[in-house]
This record gives sequence, structure tokens and C-alpha cells, in this order.
Amino acid sequence: MAALLTPESPLFSRAHTRTWETVGEGVRRQVLTHDPGTMLVKVAFDRGGIGSRHQHVHTQMTYVESGVFTVSIGDEKRVLQAGDSFYVPSEAWHGVECIEAGVLLDVFSPARTEFL
Amino acid sequence: MAALLTPESPLFSRAHTRTWETVGEGVRRQVLTHDPGTMLVKVAFDRGGIGSRHQHVHTQMTYVESGVFTVSIGDEKRVLQAGDSFYVPSEAWHGVECIEAGVLLDVFSPARTEFL
Repeated sequence: MAALLTPESPLFSRAHTRTWETVGEGVRRQVLTHDPGTMLVKVAFDRGGIGSRHQHVHTQMTYVESGVFTVSIGDEKRVLQAGDSFYVPSEAWHGVECIEAGVLLDVFSPARTEFL
Repeated sequence: MAALLTPESPLFSRAHTRTWETVGEGVRRQVLTHDPGTMLVKVAFDRGGIGSRHQHVHTQMTYVESGVFTVSIGDEKRVLQAGDSFYVPSEAWHGVECIEAGVLLDVFSPARTEFL
């Protein structure tokens, strides 16, 4: 089944084999799996951790696995918690502030190769 | 900011506004957010729930939010648990069996419009 393997990601990824990178105060990132078109990334926030407002060409879909976050997209803002999700269109300004420690799952399209 | 809205998904999606669909015995699916290129789907499994082996043109990235699953891709098989992930190349045969009740987050590219 070697033909199924991609150069970017193994078929199966154990959590403990994926490295965590500190990307800000109280914010850590773990790239889970990716191919050129899509990237799945886990981001763990301590309370008070901030994802500063930024923009990128990639679309972003985010699932709140745990915790509570204030999420801003464009000029809209919501408080989201476990089970909620949000969608960031290409080039839209967005950011998050962590109110209660938790984890976000981000899906980027295409892959954010600068994370590798 | 109306220009930011996509016809498919709102910017913010509360968990309670997303409908659950029973897709098999002990298996329920909730489409979280999507655009034409990508779809984020939550699938909740009772113990013993099965995602029968199947294939599709879409690539699939899956994150194990909770529970324990036997995952087969092609002729490889692993037992995965919370925090693990897997990658299904386009057209690869794959399936899951739920050993302990839990939740999978599936990312499909392009969107699986038949889920809508």
C-alpha cells in the first residue's frame, strides 16, 4: 500500500509523535496532518492566550474542542465554547482570545506551509 | 461585512444550531461548516458503532476527539484514541470500528455535498 502514502503525512498519526511548538504566550500549536490542499492543526490555549488579529489567503474552519474563546471575524465577535465552530473566509481579518483554557482545531485550505 | 458571508456556512456556528443525522446504528453525524473546497464534520459513535469500509474521491483528515477506534486504511489497521489522527488519500478504502464511545472530526476536500 505504499501508493497510499503521501510525502507530507503518514496515514496514521499518534498524538505523542506530533511535536508541539510554542507560538505565543500561552499558545501552543501541533500540526496533525496535511497535504498540499488541506492542513489540520491543533492549538492549545492557556487562559488569557491570544491569537492576534491577522489575515491570510487560506480559508480557515475552526472547531472548539474545549474551553471558551472570544472570536472576532471581520467586525463581528462572538463567545464560543466546546462544540461550536467558525469559518474564516480567505483574507478576512480574525483573532481569538482565550477566556477559559482550551483547544481549537483549525483546518486551513490550502496548507499553511510556513507551519512546517 | 456581508461580503465575508459565504452562501454555505455562517461565520459562527453554535453547536446547538447544527442538526444531528443518524447515519447508522450508533453513529450520528453533524456537519459543522463547509465551503465548496472543504467540509468539517463531527461524527459521534456509540460503542460498537461502525463506519463500514468505503471509498470516495475526497481526501479525508480525521482527528479523534474522544473514544477509541480501530481504523483501517487500505490494508493497514491501527487502534487510535483521543488526540490521534489519520489521513485517507483520495479513493483509498477505509473504515472505522468504535471500541469505546467517542467522537471523530472529519475534514473532507472537496466538500461532500451529498451530506447536505
